[in-house]
Amino acid sequence: MSAGSSRETRSNSKAVGEGQAPARRYHSVRAQSEALARPLAVEDYVVQSMPDVSPTKWHLAHTTWFFETFVLARFAPSYEPLEPRYGYLFNSYYESVGTRHPRPERGMLSRPTVAETYDYRAHVDRAMGALFGRAGSAVLEEAASLIELGLQHEEQHQELMLTDLKHVLGRNPLRPAYGSAAPMPPEREVQALRFFDQPGGLISIGHEGPEFAFDNETPRHRVFLRPYRLADRLVTNGEFLAFIEAGGYSRPEFWLSDGWATLQAHGWQAPLYWERADSGWFEYTLAGGAPLMHSAPVSHVSYYEADAYSRFAGARLPTETEWEAVAARQPTSGNFVERRHYHPSAAPDDDGVRQLYGDAWEWTGSAYLAYPGYRPWAGAVGEYNGKFMSNQFVLRGGSCATPERHVRATYRNFFPPDARWQFTGIRLAEDA
Amino acid sequence: MSAGSSRETRSNSKAVGEGQAPARRYHSVRAQSEALARPLAVEDYVVQSMPDVSPTKWHLAHTTWFFETFVLARFAPSYEPLEPRYGYLFNSYYESVGTRHPRPERGMLSRPTVAETYDYRAHVDRAMGALFGRAGSAVLEEAASLIELGLQHEEQHQELMLTDLKHVLGRNPLRPAYGSAAPMPPEREVQALRFFDQPGGLISIGHEGPEFAFDNETPRHRVFLRPYRLADRLVTNGEFLAFIEAGGYSRPEFWLSDGWATLQAHGWQAPLYWERADSGWFEYTLAGGAPLMHSAPVSHVSYYEADAYSRFAGARLPTETEWEAVAARQPTSGNFVERRHYHPSAAPDDDGVRQLYGDAWEWTGSAYLAYPGYRPWAGAVGEYNGKFMSNQFVLRGGSCATPERHVRATYRNFFPPDARWQFTGIRLAEDA
Amino acid sequence: MSAGSSRETRSNSKAVGEGQAPARRYHSVRAQSEALARPLAVEDYVVQSMPDVSPTKWHLAHTTWFFETFVLARFAPSYEPLEPRYGYLFNSYYESVGTRHPRPERGMLSRPTVAETYDYRAHVDRAMGALFGRAGSAVLEEAASLIELGLQHEEQHQELMLTDLKHVLGRNPLRPAYGSAAPMPPEREVQALRFFDQPGGLISIGHEGPEFAFDNETPRHRVFLRPYRLADRLVTNGEFLAFIEAGGYSRPEFWLSDGWATLQAHGWQAPLYWERADSGWFEYTLAGGAPLMHSAPVSHVSYYEADAYSRFAGARLPTETEWEAVAARQPTSGNFVERRHYHPSAAPDDDGVRQLYGDAWEWTGSAYLAYPGYRPWAGAVGEYNGKFMSNQFVLRGGSCATPERHVRATYRNFFPPDARWQFTGIRLAEDA
Amino acid sequence: MSAGSSRETRSNSKAVGEGQAPARRYHSVRAQSEALARPLAVEDYVVQSMPDVSPTKWHLAHTTWFFETFVLARFAPSYEPLEPRYGYLFNSYYESVGTRHPRPERGMLSRPTVAETYDYRAHVDRAMGALFGRAGSAVLEEAASLIELGLQHEEQHQELMLTDLKHVLGRNPLRPAYGSAAPMPPEREVQALRFFDQPGGLISIGHEGPEFAFDNETPRHRVFLRPYRLADRLVTNGEFLAFIEAGGYSRPEFWLSDGWATLQAHGWQAPLYWERADSGWFEYTLAGGAPLMHSAPVSHVSYYEADAYSRFAGARLPTETEWEAVAARQPTSGNFVERRHYHPSAAPDDDGVRQLYGDAWEWTGSAYLAYPGYRPWAGAVGEYNGKFMSNQFVLRGGSCATPERHVRATYRNFFPPDARWQFTGIRLAEDA
Repeated sequence: MSAGSSRETRSNSKAVGEGQAPARRYHSVRAQSEALARPLAVEDYVVQSMPDVSPTKWHLAHTTWFFETFVLARFAPSYEPLEPRYGYLFNSYYESVGTRHPRPERGMLSRPTVAETYDYRAHVDRAMGALFGRAGSAVLEEAASLIELGLQHEEQHQELMLTDLKHVLGRNPLRPAYGSAAPMPPEREVQALRFFDQPGGLISIGHEGPEFAFDNETPRHRVFLRPYRLADRLVTNGEFLAFIEAGGYSRPEFWLSDGWATLQAHGWQAPLYWERADSGWFEYTLAGGAPLMHSAPVSHVSYYEADAYSRFAGARLPTETEWEAVAARQPTSGNFVERRHYHPSAAPDDDGVRQLYGDAWEWTGSAYLAYPGYRPWAGAVGEYNGKFMSNQFVLRGGSCATPERHVRATYRNFFPPDARWQFTGIRLAEDA
Repeated sequence: MSAGSSRETRSNSKAVGEGQAPARRYHSVRAQSEALARPLAVEDYVVQSMPDVSPTKWHLAHTTWFFETFVLARFAPSYEPLEPRYGYLFNSYYESVGTRHPRPERGMLSRPTVAETYDYRAHVDRAMGALFGRAGSAVLEEAASLIELGLQHEEQHQELMLTDLKHVLGRNPLRPAYGSAAPMPPEREVQALRFFDQPGGLISIGHEGPEFAFDNETPRHRVFLRPYRLADRLVTNGEFLAFIEAGGYSRPEFWLSDGWATLQAHGWQAPLYWERADSGWFEYTLAGGAPLMHSAPVSHVSYYEADAYSRFAGARLPTETEWEAVAARQPTSGNFVERRHYHPSAAPDDDGVRQLYGDAWEWTGSAYLAYPGYRPWAGAVGEYNGKFMSNQFVLRGGSCATPERHVRATYRNFFPPDARWQFTGIRLAEDA
Repeated sequence: MSAGSSRETRSNSKAVGEGQAPARRYHSVRAQSEALARPLAVEDYVVQSMPDVSPTKWHLAHTTWFFETFVLARFAPSYEPLEPRYGYLFNSYYESVGTRHPRPERGMLSRPTVAETYDYRAHVDRAMGALFGRAGSAVLEEAASLIELGLQHEEQHQELMLTDLKHVLGRNPLRPAYGSAAPMPPEREVQALRFFDQPGGLISIGHEGPEFAFDNETPRHRVFLRPYRLADRLVTNGEFLAFIEAGGYSRPEFWLSDGWATLQAHGWQAPLYWERADSGWFEYTLAGGAPLMHSAPVSHVSYYEADAYSRFAGARLPTETEWEAVAARQPTSGNFVERRHYHPSAAPDDDGVRQLYGDAWEWTGSAYLAYPGYRPWAGAVGEYNGKFMSNQFVLRGGSCATPERHVRATYRNFFPPDARWQFTGIRLAEDA
Repeated sequence: MSAGSSRETRSNSKAVGEGQAPARRYHSVRAQSEALARPLAVEDYVVQSMPDVSPTKWHLAHTTWFFETFVLARFAPSYEPLEPRYGYLFNSYYESVGTRHPRPERGMLSRPTVAETYDYRAHVDRAMGALFGRAGSAVLEEAASLIELGLQHEEQHQELMLTDLKHVLGRNPLRPAYGSAAPMPPEREVQALRFFDQPGGLISIGHEGPEFAFDNETPRHRVFLRPYRLADRLVTNGEFLAFIEAGGYSRPEFWLSDGWATLQAHGWQAPLYWERADSGWFEYTLAGGAPLMHSAPVSHVSYYEADAYSRFAGARLPTETEWEAVAARQPTSGNFVERRHYHPSAAPDDDGVRQLYGDAWEWTGSAYLAYPGYRPWAGAVGEYNGKFMSNQFVLRGGSCATPERHVRATYRNFFPPDARWQFTGIRLAEDA
């Protein structure tokens, strides 16, 4: 129901010490949100195609509300809200901040208009600019971590803007494209999937140190692992198609009980956005409809589908510890939003485990729960992560819609097991 | 889900005989739809605030689709649709014309955009213009009745555009106004309600003659009526408030069983758009929120509320025959959309039964069923009225959102008994 | 949700004047309810197979509660309830008598047990016996009409006991039989359907006179009818099968809009209780499963199916006035519950309109509404009929599950248009 | 959604080697199911008060079906089913064994009757007796582990029979008692809650060895634990009441997001079966309604309530490893079903951690997932545990409705976090 967080942010205190760096980072992140919305028609900002999806307009306003509520209201005493009722309209789920507009009705609001929403952003950006003008002040020092949280939060919503928009456009029978994406690499053969042995033992995972991380990544702690084997790349569309063709969606033996019930309730027969035509399989992408690319990683699968596929393949999903133990040794580079494909692409031919970052979030077999010794942040922002610790699974590694700097090895994303509208894919593991 | 129709249309054949008159009427009705949309922001065109409501964009496209499907496809062989998939998107409920986009998902379509929708209108208007250019031709003679039906249909949707938009704007917590309405007359005392005796006997109702009427108004037929008494004006907000203050919404003895269940399921405590504040009652109108005007007719009540009020008042609702017997003797003038109040206004002080036309549709105690000897129109347009003949009640007289020329004494509107988003009000009757 | 009522009851005052006749009638009706339950296993008394259905145990207790609440509580001051909480458990829908147990939860009550329910009946019967012992007293005179209403009410519930039980047993995959029914006449050819001309004119319908009738049958009043033609018998299973084989359930042109939506929501493909096997069509009856008898009247069809069939047949359903005008000239005899078939049987070969009484309730095209001048009974029993006057259609003539003496020409039964679990069938009519 | 398993069963092979011991155990377990049903009226066997609850009749038949399907059909070639359609009616969720009757409709079956259900049990017991007569044979050796599984399965259903019945009787407004329970100890003071330090380190949990255990308890494996502190007893009703009185059910800061939504959707204001009267709090127990006993452990709380309470108390729930590390050092004795209280009772005064077994299942903070290296059983019984590994939490220790011999330190029960109708309680833990 939520999203994720920040890679490689320099330490906050250091950043503040660097004078205008925080202001530059603020305006850069804020500008990126607006850049992502630039290809849209006004009408595209308004629609909510299912309760999980929010209109673009809402994302732009809600991220602004975050700074207004958690930073300006507290650290800028002379700040005047542009419109007090926005506090009600753009609160997402912070119970401690007051009542809020019901989530499933976000698409029923034609007002504020898109132009008024940008006015709201400008109003808050000006006030934030004034706050940054007090660089070095005690107030700004104190606000720094909340400002950084607000930017991390906005980066998460940048990803949701793309995935929500894909849902809005993708269920329109006209199948319009989002805008100019960078061209995808051509179809090609991919190397056969291999598993690489991993040693197990007493492993430390989780975040420690001065860099930004969400509370749910802490504390760093030890986990005992048995030796295991991790697949070298994500499962491809072509491999997943073999599951479909083997009757995977009509054979209960592969499925969790809840998964089978969900499949039947929704009539699932393929990943979200797949369509079977007489001439073969097509997939809706943010560049429009396209023939299914067999070499690309499968995405838009639920946990249930990932788990069922792993059983079909005689394997299983990795735990989050198994994933992090390997990922911690690799650089966080990959097919992130900066490449402007907005779609997963085939793993490079190579030796060893790769494609851990970018392309598609990887479902793990770990329930999203507190780490031993976990403490939520103090205050209202303590509602950020901890209160979702039931009925969700952990995903790792980021996707083609995630800002590259936002992800790191310890980053924990989480979604309910039936969620499909994110770029979610499958990496396999095995017992040694 | 609704109907509507035409008053005082000159006979179709005559109109056609007058050369350019049909073309002028066509372009005038089409222009009026666009004029009604003029005060809107682009965002306002997109939203569907409940399944019964359609986005303005959809109304503008659907009325255009009607001409494309039922006129151009048949009478203009060289006509090329602008976009063939619009046939799927903008069919409302004509089963015989093919499958259609699901009604509750009309608000999930950001495309076609508003500009593209106007392009669609212009495309069809050009083709219709070419058809009118063949004035006097056998083709045009043959098409004339379908063209007139299309215009009547568009007039009905003009009313729905306003009532749907009221729902969209009215449930927005910002309570925006629709645009510049003509100022309402000031609050004042209204004359006490009186009942006037009506004779009964063998009465003829229904339509007969060359003027346009919907199939459901025919055939003209005889109904035996007992003597009765009809209230001289609509029930006012002030009178309805007395019902509320007497506990009307918590006393089951006034309510039909289905009405009581509906009230409880939805938590109704007042008509739609009423709000109780510390300083008294307010009402959302298309001019924005305003203190409740006691002299104005109550509107936005369901059949259940109208029926419960009538029982509270020791009276009952009139049958449609009782209504028509009186209305047929009066001119069809009143507070219609042309006055640009977009809200019911107080009855003039006068002697005798008045306010039968305009202000608010009047719920009758008659179920919407076929008249004796009824025959639906031939072809696909036979789905226009007949297939809704269950679970609906008849309303008469038009409202402040109806084009004046659209209504006549025999006109039968119909809605399910729980509908509240139209301008629907209450006239009382009694047995003699 | 339904009604029912009494034919041929001698005038109440006369009955009371005859001394023990009221007591005999009371005990005879009460004994008949128990006789109908005799073939059941204890478990059969408990189950509620859908919200519309009540457990047999509930029927036996609720009819008893009626006498306790409306007769004993008022006319037998020393009466002590066996268990005060039964007042809550066994109230059906009388808002004015207090809160009540939710209808959909009637099948969740294992207590009172069946034996305790019979104890409750005996307790009330003893108190009623004591009341009858005061024959000729002013109290009994005053109670007489409520006692008669209680007996009419119990006769209605006798029919519901059978139809509810049919639903309980019929949806059990074991398809158990209710008990020993009289053998059905063998399959045979039926005469081709004919229509007989009826004159129309100013017709009087409705009840007048001292015999018992429900309030909704009054007052007797005049209705103007056009000449029409009425089918001589009910539509048979064989004829309805032709509708199915012509694709009737997949052709929207035959259906009301609400009917088509209902058909799709429930997946209807045949009347309730029909099953298609490799060897042909079967029908569940209270005697168990049996091959479909083509000559028998179709039953367990909704209004929507009756209406769709009539359109397929190029005809229509009669109005209730058209039905009563003919039925009033005929004796009320037919295949009623006393024949113990518990299933409709083929119309006898004969000349003229027949089978108007018994076999299956006949859907009319008339909405269930108040007659002109209608006044509900005073007091709590005024909730008996009037509050259901929306969203229901009138049925006439009784069925194979109705007590013969309960029906008469003016009797108005009513059900919502999607109801199928009663013995409901089809008679056709045409305009002359 | 399911239940648990077996303590202290001698090894299956050994048991079989002892000749008639398996037969004795079989008949003893089977007889215990029937003994539990003995206090019931026939009607009590039939009702399903919510989809999670099954009628007693169904439990008795389903446990029988298990032996018929998994043992007799495979190992007794001449076995003839009493009624082949029972295979459809009494399959719970085994997809690989064929289609099945829908779970929410189990309460709609009046047949087979209770007597027929006992006939079915006797029929299968006779066939099982014949199978046991072949003691020492290879067939019986092969069947032994499935027979033991069937008995473990029946023990689980014995617990469900009691908890389901409590729901059936407890929601009946008459609040009937189940039957004669042993008297509860009187109200008294309980010692203040204390936490005891536990060392942490590399701990082994899970089952290993020849005794019976469910697949989900295996394999035994190592888990690294930080030092922690475990509460010495269960949280009492009196302590939970303090949470309620502090506004616990209206303060979102204590609740998981899903828990808060669940609370609001259902209107929870106290544990299931608690009722507030003018004279104080009452609780429905299987002995009937009774004043709330403050010293007894709170039960019938969901995971959400347990988790919220722990946050209110400044503590947390233990993980299943933390629980098992302590419980493995203690004998599995406590207030189990054999004491016939059918209700949790106050912890004895003592030093050290106690009450780990019996009284109430203890919610842990561990999601129900596979242990590292987990392999489900082969064949259809592989659907027993593994397919429920999503959206459930682990519970430990057994309850007052569990057979004592059925539980052990490694036993993992699991339910969704909103389940309240089991005897589920709260033990607290803390970080050291």
